[in-house]
Amino acid sequence: MTDAAATHTIAVIGGTGPQGKGLAYRWAAAGHEVVLGSRSAERAEAAAEEIKERLPEGSVRGAANADALDGADVVLLAVPYDGHDDLVASLADGLAAKVVISCVNPLGFDKAGPYGLDVERSAAEAAAAIVPTARVVGAFHHVSAVSLWKHDGPLDHEDVLVCGDDADAKAVAIGLARAVTGRDGVDAGRLRLARQLEPLTAVLISINKRYKTRSGIAISGIPGRDH
Amino acid sequence: MTDAAATHTIAVIGGTGPQGKGLAYRWAAAGHEVVLGSRSAERAEAAAEEIKERLPEGSVRGAANADALDGADVVLLAVPYDGHDDLVASLADGLAAKVVISCVNPLGFDKAGPYGLDVERSAAEAAAAIVPTARVVGAFHHVSAVSLWKHDGPLDHEDVLVCGDDADAKAVAIGLARAVTGRDGVDAGRLRLARQLEPLTAVLISINKRYKTRSGIAISGIPGRDH
Repeated sequence: MTDAAATHTIAVIGGTGPQGKGLAYRWAAAGHEVVLGSRSAERAEAAAEEIKERLPEGSVRGAANADALDGADVVLLAVPYDGHDDLVASLADGLAAKVVISCVNPLGFDKAGPYGLDVERSAAEAAAAIVPTARVVGAFHHVSAVSLWKHDGPLDHEDVLVCGDDADAKAVAIGLARAVTGRDGVDAGRLRLARQLEPLTAVLISINKRYKTRSGIAISGIPGRDH
Repeated sequence: MTDAAATHTIAVIGGTGPQGKGLAYRWAAAGHEVVLGSRSAERAEAAAEEIKERLPEGSVRGAANADALDGADVVLLAVPYDGHDDLVASLADGLAAKVVISCVNPLGFDKAGPYGLDVERSAAEAAAAIVPTARVVGAFHHVSAVSLWKHDGPLDHEDVLVCGDDADAKAVAIGLARAVTGRDGVDAGRLRLARQLEPLTAVLISINKRYKTRSGIAISGIPGRDH
């Protein structure tokens, strides 16, 4: 069901942001070839250098977004929700037919804290609608960027929830979760459930503020996984 | 912050449904006085008898919904989303000024599985709007009714996520979580985050189908709680 052993070439669109850079670091550490993408090739290269300093043996480089997509078989969309649809449309050629993992969170913040934006469709569904041949899955919304970057070991008290309508693409994301949590991601169902997964991040941020922590989600009851 | 030691008189509106009956069983087992409410007093009494058979020492009885509210200091709303607003409006007098815990999930189901309904406001926010003096919190959406009823021990791999704008009411629900999970509920933030907590149940049901299990949610990173 998963391809945990496979090695991918992963383009991280939004690779200079904390979530993109953190996931890139974990994937490079697991032996994948990673290309950070950014609007600015220079900033992407600088972020790649940051990872290389910590991981001299890793295969990591930076490029402008469209160039980062060249040769990648997997793409992570780790961009802000603001401007998401336009950016995806501008990269449609490079995203076509690829496994596209979206960890984009449509969140708002006001004086009462974080909340899920009232959106018509999830970011993942939007990407799928804009690039119909892209094999879009939603995943990696909930892992803390700080934990990804700071910790050396697997985040083994957390789960990566993966939703999507393409079983093979979902299996890729489920396998890539191992680089983060040390275990397969959880198949959370259809792509439309990204409407639930994306804004759940608001709850975690709220918990982080309340408890001064970096919280994560774990799913109990999956056979063979509980302590 | 919590009042885990306090004993409450809890009216469970929708007490003949699996979620209401399961929570009633756990709370009665923890020493709270529980009154199951239903549209039909007879069916409420029958459900109370089912609990009493397993818990002869428990304080459990059944009554028509409005009567169940008499003398209760805490109310659990465990009714179907369909008809929720009308039912809450019909019970407004009895709900006034009480701690009202909503575990109502606005879910839809079709051939592709469960999904969150596209609602304007969460069920918990609706209850708060319909009965402005009620001290509404959202909690207990995610614990499996089957697990509540079948297991004897605490569901100690799960967390009860509690949201609300009334700190004291929230503390009551956080304390009542101990009867279910063996530990305090997690303060998940403002009442509006019920928009995220309620439909998350669709994800858990989807996981249950995929893995043939009864899944639950746990929050990692809360100080003093991880394994």
